Amino acid sequence: MPDTPDALLTARMADAIRFLALDAIERAGDGHPGAPLGCAEIAVALFTRHLRCNPADPVWPDRDRFVLSNGHGSMLLYAALHLAGYEGLPMEQIRRFRELGAHTHGHPEIAPELGIEATTGPLGQGIANAVGMAVAEARLAATFGSDLVDHRTYALVGDGCLQEGIAHEVISLAGHLRLGKLTFLWDDNRITDDGATDLSISEDVRARFRAADWQVIDADGHDVEAVSAAIRLAQGDPRPTLIACRTVIGRGLPRLEGQRGAHGGRVLASDCAEARAARGWDHPPFTVPDDVAAAWQAGVSGRNRDGYTTWTRRRDALPAEVRAEFDRVSDARLPEVWHAPLRGLRDRFAEAGAARPSIEVSAEIVAALSDGMPELFSGAPDLEGPTKHKGALHAFTAQDRSGRYLHYGIREHAMGAMMNGIAAHRGLVPVGATYLVFSDYMRPSLRMAALMNLPVITVYSHDSIAIGRNGPTHQPVEYLASLRAIPNMLVLRPADAVETAECWEMALANRTGPTSLVCSRQALPALRGPGIEENRSARGAYVLAEASGPRRVTLIGTGSEVALALTARAMLQAEGVPTAVVSMPSWEAFAAQDAAYRASVIPRDTVRVAVEAALRFGWDRWIGEDGGFVGMTGFGASGAPEDLFRHFGITAEAVAETARARLR
Amino acid sequence: MPDTPDALLTARMADAIRFLALDAIERAGDGHPGAPLGCAEIAVALFTRHLRCNPADPVWPDRDRFVLSNGHGSMLLYAALHLAGYEGLPMEQIRRFRELGAHTHGHPEIAPELGIEATTGPLGQGIANAVGMAVAEARLAATFGSDLVDHRTYALVGDGCLQEGIAHEVISLAGHLRLGKLTFLWDDNRITDDGATDLSISEDVRARFRAADWQVIDADGHDVEAVSAAIRLAQGDPRPTLIACRTVIGRGLPRLEGQRGAHGGRVLASDCAEARAARGWDHPPFTVPDDVAAAWQAGVSGRNRDGYTTWTRRRDALPAEVRAEFDRVSDARLPEVWHAPLRGLRDRFAEAGAARPSIEVSAEIVAALSDGMPELFSGAPDLEGPTKHKGALHAFTAQDRSGRYLHYGIREHAMGAMMNGIAAHRGLVPVGATYLVFSDYMRPSLRMAALMNLPVITVYSHDSIAIGRNGPTHQPVEYLASLRAIPNMLVLRPADAVETAECWEMALANRTGPTSLVCSRQALPALRGPGIEENRSARGAYVLAEASGPRRVTLIGTGSEVALALTARAMLQAEGVPTAVVSMPSWEAFAAQDAAYRASVIPRDTVRVAVEAALRFGWDRWIGEDGGFVGMTGFGASGAPEDLFRHFGITAEAVAETARARLR
Repeated sequence: MPDTPDALLTARMADAIRFLALDAIERAGDGHPGAPLGCAEIAVALFTRHLRCNPADPVWPDRDRFVLSNGHGSMLLYAALHLAGYEGLPMEQIRRFRELGAHTHGHPEIAPELGIEATTGPLGQGIANAVGMAVAEARLAATFGSDLVDHRTYALVGDGCLQEGIAHEVISLAGHLRLGKLTFLWDDNRITDDGATDLSISEDVRARFRAADWQVIDADGHDVEAVSAAIRLAQGDPRPTLIACRTVIGRGLPRLEGQRGAHGGRVLASDCAEARAARGWDHPPFTVPDDVAAAWQAGVSGRNRDGYTTWTRRRDALPAEVRAEFDRVSDARLPEVWHAPLRGLRDRFAEAGAARPSIEVSAEIVAALSDGMPELFSGAPDLEGPTKHKGALHAFTAQDRSGRYLHYGIREHAMGAMMNGIAAHRGLVPVGATYLVFSDYMRPSLRMAALMNLPVITVYSHDSIAIGRNGPTHQPVEYLASLRAIPNMLVLRPADAVETAECWEMALANRTGPTSLVCSRQALPALRGPGIEENRSARGAYVLAEASGPRRVTLIGTGSEVALALTARAMLQAEGVPTAVVSMPSWEAFAAQDAAYRASVIPRDTVRVAVEAALRFGWDRWIGEDGGFVGMTGFGASGAPEDLFRHFGITAEAVAETARARLR
Repeated sequence: MPDTPDALLTARMADAIRFLALDAIERAGDGHPGAPLGCAEIAVALFTRHLRCNPADPVWPDRDRFVLSNGHGSMLLYAALHLAGYEGLPMEQIRRFRELGAHTHGHPEIAPELGIEATTGPLGQGIANAVGMAVAEARLAATFGSDLVDHRTYALVGDGCLQEGIAHEVISLAGHLRLGKLTFLWDDNRITDDGATDLSISEDVRARFRAADWQVIDADGHDVEAVSAAIRLAQGDPRPTLIACRTVIGRGLPRLEGQRGAHGGRVLASDCAEARAARGWDHPPFTVPDDVAAAWQAGVSGRNRDGYTTWTRRRDALPAEVRAEFDRVSDARLPEVWHAPLRGLRDRFAEAGAARPSIEVSAEIVAALSDGMPELFSGAPDLEGPTKHKGALHAFTAQDRSGRYLHYGIREHAMGAMMNGIAAHRGLVPVGATYLVFSDYMRPSLRMAALMNLPVITVYSHDSIAIGRNGPTHQPVEYLASLRAIPNMLVLRPADAVETAECWEMALANRTGPTSLVCSRQALPALRGPGIEENRSARGAYVLAEASGPRRVTLIGTGSEVALALTARAMLQAEGVPTAVVSMPSWEAFAAQDAAYRASVIPRDTVRVAVEAALRFGWDRWIGEDGGFVGMTGFGASGAPEDLFRHFGITAEAVAETARARLR
């Protein structure tokens, strides 16, 4: 037991977390006591001695970021934030842990105004978000200087997060980038859900981090002084730091501590009583004694008061223009004129009428945008050449933080989750480019972006069998469906250069969720001419070519297949069948239109045929169960693109014939 | 240059690979020359000095397995197999590299009869397959003894594979399991598509492997003797081995060697000519000089002749019963009586009529099957408790290879890809259990299982918002759609214990692709009584409760929502609306039925309403665009399950009302 008044108070500051967690979990009937109990001292060390934050201004742009990567330990975060004085988390919220409508969800859900920087739970995502946040900090400091941007990123991480593959991707990259302001606090409790960690791992985790050029410090995770000293060491090293905190899972809960059952086991009323007896905590449930509350307030708000005031003064003293720019990017607002270069490009594409790969068009757009949008931050997982989204941007590296292109390496999952962290941090607009098939590698992160409402833009190239000889491993067929299936994911598949510009406008305008911009490797003929002011793609689908005569057939295409639909239309019109072609770059945008518009674009009393070099899956919504569909029915094959389109029957003739069969 | 006749011949054996690759890539017009040229000596060392194989019997069960994890270097594999004498890869196939219909696809596609052990290309998958193969070997050796099963697994791996997160998952696990017969040959060429590897990585890869308890050996990758000596060292160590082969990408192609462009750059006719001049190779395209051909034959078939004969003799001398069992599992045939325990369980469930979580029922089935199916090999990524698929099986560990349950650790992606390797190896039936939301982590591997036609069974628990308080991160809503979207993936969602047994029968019967068995955490009431012999689930959908009177409404449910449909039916029937309930455990199986059956189960002239605690995405195929749907429209929330179902309007009343609205 602690033997000085200070040490005793410190121990009780940790116990305050323990009992809030135990009482809340007991009351909710389920939850994960292991981490809140095992990491209470770590939280005290971090929150009351180091974390730069201001509960009265939770979204202070220069606050330190803390991510609870082991999100199942959510009560640790809620308890710490409550004790720190975040007003959005009063005791009533702790009491309502895991109730529908409370902010104290089973796993933390992003709410910076409450001190919750990221939604976590799916393991490995949180630490990757943290790496993204550290990148954002370094990049913004290069623009605005360390007077305005000088904060650290901490993540609490369990064995689960570290075993996930994504962990190594970001460990490797963070070491490479020398993100010295990044610190992982590892809850090294040697227990997972299955039991002792040695059931499934025997690697030397410390050596692994050192191999990736991290500083590694050991600390007794139940000694606030030791953890605090380690954090201080972390702050003085140019490398990212792993603090390996040796802990006992469920510490303080006699029945379960140190055991597998502590991870997510049920907490009984008797457990709370036994824990109170064991720790000498004689306060009623959901009660924090005044001296402990005061010590927390002093450790958080009190300690940070001067730093916050000084920083605010520095910001207020900025030249108006710089201040406005800083505020703008900190609020994740786009520049006022962001549409202008896009519309200029769109008009130029419309005039030029050139056949171009849409991935190349997208790259040109990014290059053009990057001038007027200094927060645009591009990158790709080792596909700089094929995706071309680097352009004239220079690389963000360990040596040069002013770069705006990140070589993510062959680490798609890291890119996905780091972009989430970059967007959650605010200040940058992350854009990542890769092949469509590799979206599966980052899918857990794409889902998190959608769930967190983060404006993350991913640009995909190589969107169909048109890539040809690289074969079925690299040919998406189910990806449009599986991306469209993610709630809050805006999926865009432009048909030509003009639509690509329009889709980029939609992507940037989408501030409350991620966008998947799906592009072609092959050249797409120009389908849209000049003279149209409206962003037609923004309607999701529109009549590209109306029927000559009373419409009998509606051909619907997306991306590269719109051109096939136009050819099929010519065949049908020549046969006297009035046929319209609808270009449908986005299902989600079309679904958001009113019924009258939808009915005018795709009338149900016409023969409806869709063409997309992908599976039919989901299309019945737009063409009806009797509608015609020309596309893929299974995986692709290795061969020349023209051979494949013929082989799989994705031709204008097949589109026309599918319509004819429904006219008979 | 080599200075002895032997060394000269060896060098020419490697050059034979180089020129087959160059000529084929030049002819195809695209391909990836970097790896075939850079790894030619590695292939000579492995294939002609060490690899245990017999081109005359490519599927020899005790052959070494070789996986080209950097699948883009496919011409390396095709050239080596051609030179080794695999009859399925004659020069005609090399010539037709990347043509539609040839076996020489852009990336290797699984064809053991050709010597191709796995489909590779998506990075990291191949090495994980190899780890699975090594597990299968160790497990089978424990059953059949090292007289019958004693082979090694080699994987050629590039920087891309090693940067992917999945790599670390399997490196860590392979070291933990001490898979001493596993060797990675690392093509350490320090170049990726973006340029020098130091653009994106500076970690000490060797130290990382050592931290995971691998043996690490350095070798000059262009020195056949050095690589061969390293392989010999690998064979003598109880740990898995990384052989770091320092190579020059595109070696022998003067214009590109050692450069970024060598990875996937276009090979010109002039390149072939320059390479010929540089290497003193004066043979026409697609020609292998006789002495080189003979040396390859001697090195492969000649060297292995005795080993193969001896092994065959040992197998032939086995007791008939053992021989039959060995042949059976080697051919991936199920035991003749595999249905029996399943049907017994089904009948018992039907009699018992108990409400049970389907994940628990699935676990009981696995336990029951494991007696009569010794090849059943279960596992889970740190969810032994919640998924219960260990039962009485003991663990497969470094110390005990007789175990039949693998603690994969918190490594879903590894599990997915290792199961693919286990299935591709043959001899075991891999079953992996996890939560449905974590299927996203293994999605790239699920796709590969489908593409490779591998009978891999994944059982998912926690299949909907019914998990309640853990919240939206852990509540699948889009997963049924995204799994159903994968071609050749059988998705099963049973409604009760009887259907769970039926679905397990379908899963095991599915020998040409993966199965996703989607189970509930919560108890599902018994819906099916005794006395039915037919596997009704096998039809995909069937009438569980016919309407009383001429049917006006068809309610379609899956899994836990079938019970809601039955309650809604009772409401509608009470109002005089003849209503049937269709249980639809599998879209794919239903789609495979004839039109008459489908029309009889879900007649289009009835009001069709589907209920599934997931998104509508894809359902229009079965209910039509005017059909009613009760389910989710976005992500879930954290709260008590009953609160959530009410909150999201997934209730029997909502189902009935949705039908009523369509009857008006």
